[in-house]
Amino acid sequence: MKEVIAVVRMNMMNRTKEALTEAGIDAFFAHEAQGRGKGFVNAAVLEGAEEGYEEAAAVLGEKGKLYPKRILTAVVPDESVDAVVEEIIKVNKTGKPGDGKIFVCPIGDAVRVRTGETGAKSIA
Amino acid sequence: MKEVIAVVRMNMMNRTKEALTEAGIDAFFAHEAQGRGKGFVNAAVLEGAEEGYEEAAAVLGEKGKLYPKRILTAVVPDESVDAVVEEIIKVNKTGKPGDGKIFVCPIGDAVRVRTGETGAKSIA
Amino acid sequence: MKEVIAVVRMNMMNRTKEALTEAGIDAFFAHEAQGRGKGFVNAAVLEGAEEGYEEAAAVLGEKGKLYPKRILTAVVPDESVDAVVEEIIKVNKTGKPGDGKIFVCPIGDAVRVRTGETGAKSIA
Repeated sequence: MKEVIAVVRMNMMNRTKEALTEAGIDAFFAHEAQGRGKGFVNAAVLEGAEEGYEEAAAVLGEKGKLYPKRILTAVVPDESVDAVVEEIIKVNKTGKPGDGKIFVCPIGDAVRVRTGETGAKSIA
Repeated sequence: MKEVIAVVRMNMMNRTKEALTEAGIDAFFAHEAQGRGKGFVNAAVLEGAEEGYEEAAAVLGEKGKLYPKRILTAVVPDESVDAVVEEIIKVNKTGKPGDGKIFVCPIGDAVRVRTGETGAKSIA
Repeated sequence: MKEVIAVVRMNMMNRTKEALTEAGIDAFFAHEAQGRGKGFVNAAVLEGAEEGYEEAAAVLGEKGKLYPKRILTAVVPDESVDAVVEEIIKVNKTGKPGDGKIFVCPIGDAVRVRTGETGAKSIA
C-alpha cells in the first residue's frame, strides 16, 4: 500500500481523475494548493542575481511566485503504483515547466470507516 | 510517532474534532478537499458500461464525481494511534458509503517551532 | 529524500517561502488549513473543567477552536533537511503559542512529470 500524491495543473484535474479511474483507481481525494517547481527558475537570471545585477534580482523576486495547483492523493496497492504513476504522467506531460510532480509515500495502514476493514481490504 | 489522516464528511468535522480531544489529542489541522471512495461505485453499472450499454456509461460518467470532504491530520504517539482511530470510527461510522477513510503514515520527526523540541516532546 | 511539512501562521507564509529559497529549496507547494497545537491549552482551565467547574468547561469549549494556518510542503534531499528545518524555525519562532510545527516524513520516490526523472534527479 502506497500513497501517491500528484501535483498537477488546475485544468488537468478532470483528465487526471479519469486517468486514475482507467488505472483502476477510483478512490482518491484532491485539494487546491499553490506551488512551484525548480523548472521555473532561469539559471542565467539566478546567476545574474548572485553576481549583483539589479535587473536579475528583480526578476528573481518573481522566482518565489506560486502557481495555483491541484494536489491529488490516492492510496493504492503496491502493485498498482507503477500503473498509476504512468497514467498520471501520460495525461500531464506537456514537456513544459509546470507539468507537476508525483510523490510516492509509505503508508502504515488504512481503515475503511464504514466496515472497519484494514490493510489491502480497506482500499480494494 | 505516526501521522493519522482521516477523510471525513464535511458535517462530521466538529464531532471528529471533539472525539480527538477526548482521545487526548488536541493538536491537529484540517483542510477542505474533494474526494470519493470505492463505495460509490455500483458494480452493475460498471459491468453494464464495460459491456457497452450507453445508459450505464452515462451513469458511469458520474462515477468520478468528487464529494466535498474534510481531511483531518494529527501527529500522535505510537501508543495513541489505536485510540485515535477508534474514536474517529465511532463518530464517523454510519454504515453508508462516504463514511470515509483513515490512513496511518510514518513520520520521521516532528519539531515544535516555539521551543525547538523534537520527537515525542514536540507533540506531548 | 524527505517530505518536510511546516504548519505556519498565515502571515508567515511569504517569509517562510523566502527562507526556503535561501536554503536552496525553491520547489514546494502550500495550502490553507485550520489547526491548533497543544500550546493553546491552559492547564488550569483543563483541570477546572475536569473537576466540574462550569466556567472552565465553557472556556474549554473554546479549546478545540482551530486557527487559520498555512501548510507548506517541500520534498528535499536528505542532506538539506536540517537546513530547511532550521530556516523555517528561524523565520517562524516568536516564542508564543501558535509558532507552528514541522514534520519530516519519509518519501518513497518522486517523479518529475515533464522529464520522467525519478529519485534525487527529480528534485534537483
